[in-house]
Amino acid sequence: MATEMDLRALLADAIERRDREAAEETLWQLSEQDELGRALQELDPPRLTRLAQLLGDEHFGEFLAELEPSEAADVLERLSWGEAADVLEAMAPDDAADVFAELEPEEAGRILVAMEPLEAQELQELLSYPPDTAGGRMTPAYVALSPSVRVDQAIVALRQLAQAAETIYYVYVTDEEGHLLGVVSMRDLVLSPPDRTVGDVMETDLVRVAAKADQEEAARILIEEGLLAIPVVDEDNRLLGIITVDDVADILEREATEDIERLGGSQPLEVPYMRASPLLLWRKRVGWLLLLFVGSAYTVSVTNYYEDLIAQVTALALFIPLLIGTGGNAGSQVVTTLVRAIALEGIGLRDIPRILPKEIVTALMLGLVMAIVAFGRAEIEGLGRDLSLAVACAIFAIVLWAVTVAAVLPPVLKRLRIDPAVVSAPLIATLVDGTGLIIYFNIARLILGL
Amino acid sequence: MATEMDLRALLADAIERRDREAAEETLWQLSEQDELGRALQELDPPRLTRLAQLLGDEHFGEFLAELEPSEAADVLERLSWGEAADVLEAMAPDDAADVFAELEPEEAGRILVAMEPLEAQELQELLSYPPDTAGGRMTPAYVALSPSVRVDQAIVALRQLAQAAETIYYVYVTDEEGHLLGVVSMRDLVLSPPDRTVGDVMETDLVRVAAKADQEEAARILIEEGLLAIPVVDEDNRLLGIITVDDVADILEREATEDIERLGGSQPLEVPYMRASPLLLWRKRVGWLLLLFVGSAYTVSVTNYYEDLIAQVTALALFIPLLIGTGGNAGSQVVTTLVRAIALEGIGLRDIPRILPKEIVTALMLGLVMAIVAFGRAEIEGLGRDLSLAVACAIFAIVLWAVTVAAVLPPVLKRLRIDPAVVSAPLIATLVDGTGLIIYFNIARLILGL
Repeated sequence: MATEMDLRALLADAIERRDREAAEETLWQLSEQDELGRALQELDPPRLTRLAQLLGDEHFGEFLAELEPSEAADVLERLSWGEAADVLEAMAPDDAADVFAELEPEEAGRILVAMEPLEAQELQELLSYPPDTAGGRMTPAYVALSPSVRVDQAIVALRQLAQAAETIYYVYVTDEEGHLLGVVSMRDLVLSPPDRTVGDVMETDLVRVAAKADQEEAARILIEEGLLAIPVVDEDNRLLGIITVDDVADILEREATEDIERLGGSQPLEVPYMRASPLLLWRKRVGWLLLLFVGSAYTVSVTNYYEDLIAQVTALALFIPLLIGTGGNAGSQVVTTLVRAIALEGIGLRDIPRILPKEIVTALMLGLVMAIVAFGRAEIEGLGRDLSLAVACAIFAIVLWAVTVAAVLPPVLKRLRIDPAVVSAPLIATLVDGTGLIIYFNIARLILGL
Repeated sequence: MATEMDLRALLADAIERRDREAAEETLWQLSEQDELGRALQELDPPRLTRLAQLLGDEHFGEFLAELEPSEAADVLERLSWGEAADVLEAMAPDDAADVFAELEPEEAGRILVAMEPLEAQELQELLSYPPDTAGGRMTPAYVALSPSVRVDQAIVALRQLAQAAETIYYVYVTDEEGHLLGVVSMRDLVLSPPDRTVGDVMETDLVRVAAKADQEEAARILIEEGLLAIPVVDEDNRLLGIITVDDVADILEREATEDIERLGGSQPLEVPYMRASPLLLWRKRVGWLLLLFVGSAYTVSVTNYYEDLIAQVTALALFIPLLIGTGGNAGSQVVTTLVRAIALEGIGLRDIPRILPKEIVTALMLGLVMAIVAFGRAEIEGLGRDLSLAVACAIFAIVLWAVTVAAVLPPVLKRLRIDPAVVSAPLIATLVDGTGLIIYFNIARLILGL
C-alpha cells in the first residue's frame, strides 16, 4: 500500500513540475499495479486537465484505453467537454465507443456536440450495436480500396494509411457503395506483380460476419479460418468495420469467465475480481443464493414428511448428507463438462440421443462403484445389513438420477435460449437434494419393511 | 446416424473409383460431423494407403492435422513406415510432432528411420519439450535473416520462403550462431527505404519466451503485446521457433476447459466431449467422486456423535440439507470466481490481505440476508422460536465459515504449486458439510439449552 501512495504522490509531483517523462513512467507503474483507474479518479479536475495536456490527447487516450470503460468514463467526465471530445477523437474508435457508452447521457450529449462531425458520426454508428455483438466490437479503422487500384499503388496507399489503420495486413476491396467485394492480404500484395489490379488478385470467397451476430461467433470464425481479421457487414453486405485477432482472446476469455462464474452459482462480475467491491460481490451472489435456498427449502418439507420413518430408525439421518452430497457431486461433474461442450462443440437438443446413453452407461458404472463403497462404509457403523443395503441401493439410484437430470437440462435450456451455464453445480446439487431424499426414504422403507 | 453410414459408404466408393474430388468432399463432410477420425480408423490398411496416395501426402496430412493427435497416430500406424514418414514430412512440423508423440514407441522408431535425416532431426528437437510448454507448442517454420540483408533483398527472400513459413508477417534477425537479435514486421519492411539493411530497421527491444516456459505464459504475452507471433528461445537466446497467434485461442480455450472441468469436480477430459467414451468419462470422474465420498463420510460420524441431540429434537434433522447446502453454495460462488481470477489476474498468497477482508464483508452481508430468510422459513414449520433462532444463527455462521475457507484455499494451493482449480465446487461443499454440521449442532445445543 505504501508504494501505491508513493506513486500517487509522484504523479501529483510530476504534474506540478510538468515533467512529462516522470508522469508517464508513474502512470505505467500504476497501471501494472492495477491502480491506474483509482489514481486518475482521485486527481482533481484542474490536475487531470493539466495531465491530459502534458501527455497529449493521443497518449492520454492510450492510458484511458487500459482502464475498464466505466472507469475511463468517470475520468473523462471530469475534463471539460472540449477536452474530453479531443481525447475521444484521439482514441481508437472501438475503445472510444466503449468508453462513450458509459458516460452519463447528458454529459455524453455535450461531448458529442464538441466533437468533429465526422468522428461523432463514426462513434454513433458504432454505438448503434449492443456491445456484445460483432457490430459493437468492430473497429472502423480498416483499409478499403477500389478494385481498379494497381498493386503498386495499393502498397503506396498502405504507407499513407498505416498510421490510422488497426491492421494493414488485410486490404478490403469495396465498390462505390461500400459493398464488400473481396480481400487482399499484404502477403499477396507483396508477392503479386505490381502492374496487376487489386481486383485481379483479390480473394472473393471470403468469410464475413453480420454486425448483429454475437461477438463470440465472430471470434470462433476468425479462429477456425486462421484469419488476422474478419470483416463485419450490414444486411446489404456493406463493409462497416473489422474485428482483429487481438480482440479474439479477450472475447473468448470474457465468455469463459462468465461461464465459470455462472457455473459456480453467481452472476458474472463483469469487472476484474480485484476491482470488485464487497457490495458488487454481494449483489452478484445474493440472488442465486436466495433462489437456491428457496429451491432447497422443500427438503425441509420432504424430511418432515418422512419424520415418522426417521423417528423409528434414527440411523437413517446419519446418511443424509453423504447421499445427497454424492448426488450433487455426480451431477456437478456432468453439468460443467456439458456446459463447456455446448460452448465449444455446439452441442444441442438434437444430440440428446447420443449424450444420454453415454451418460447413463457412465452413471451405471459410477453408481456401482459408489454403491459398493457406501455399503462398506455403512457396514462399519454396524447398524444392520438391511440399512447398509438400503444406503447402497439409494446411492446407486441417486447417482443415476443426478446424472440424467444434469445431462438433459443444459441442452434443453439452450433450446429455450437460456444460457445453459445457469445450471450451475449448486443448482444441480439443490435439485438433487430433495428428490434424492425421496428416493432414499422410499428405498429404505421398502428394504427395512417399515 | 444414417448420414454418417452413407458418408462412409461414399468414402469407400470414392477410394474404389479413385475419385479424388469425391473422396475429398466426403472427408470434409465427415470432418464437419466430427466423424473423420472414426471413419479413417475404420478403413482397412490397403484402402487407407490408397486414400493417402489419392490425396497426396500433403493433403492427407492436412486432414490428419484436423484430428486429435492420438486419432491421427492410430491412422498413421496402419500405413507402411515409409508412407507414414512421407505424410509426417508433409505436415506442419508442430502438428507432426504432436502426432508423432502419440505413436507406439517401436512404430515411432521405425517411422523416424524412414524419414529424411533433416526432417527427423527437426521433429526430435520439437519433441524434446513437453507438449504444454512453449517449446512443445512452437513451430520451426519461421523466417530468419542476417542483419546485413538489405530491405529489398529481404522482400525478395520472403517471396521465396512464403510457402514454407507459418507467418511471413514477422522476419526474425539472427546472427551466425542463431542468437536472436531483433525482429522486423512485414509492415516495417514495406514501409522502409529499400536500400537500408534489416539490421538498420529491426526492432531490438522484442519480447521472447523461454522454450521451457508454460504455453499459457507465451499465449498471455502474445495477447498483452498484441503480437502476431512470439519467438521461442533456448537458455542462450538462440531462436528455436515461434508460436503464432492462431495457436493462442486454442491454448486459452484448453486451459479454460481444464479449469471448468476441474471446478466441476472431475479430471480434465482432454478430448472433445462428443468423442469421449463412457469408459473415459468414468475414469475421469470416478476418482474425484470416491475421494469426495471418503471426505464426506465423516459427516456420518459427526451426525452419529450428535445422535442424542437429534433423538431429543427430531426436528433438528429437518434443516440439515438446507443448512449444509447453503454453505456449499456460498463456498462454490467464491471458489469459482477466485480460481478464475487466479488464472486471469495472477492473484496469489500475497493478495490474501486484500481478498479476505473483502470476502468477509461480503459474507457478513450475505449471511445476514440468509439468516433472516432462514428464520422466516423455520417459523413456517412452527417448531418454536428457539429452533428458528438456532437455524438462523447456524446459517449465518456456516456462510461466513464457507466463504472464508473458499477464499483462503485457492491462493494457498497456488503457492503449493497445486492447480487451484482442484478446489472444485463439490470439494468445497464436502469440506463445509461436516464442519457445517458441527457448527449447527453446537449452536442448537447452546440456544435450545440441551
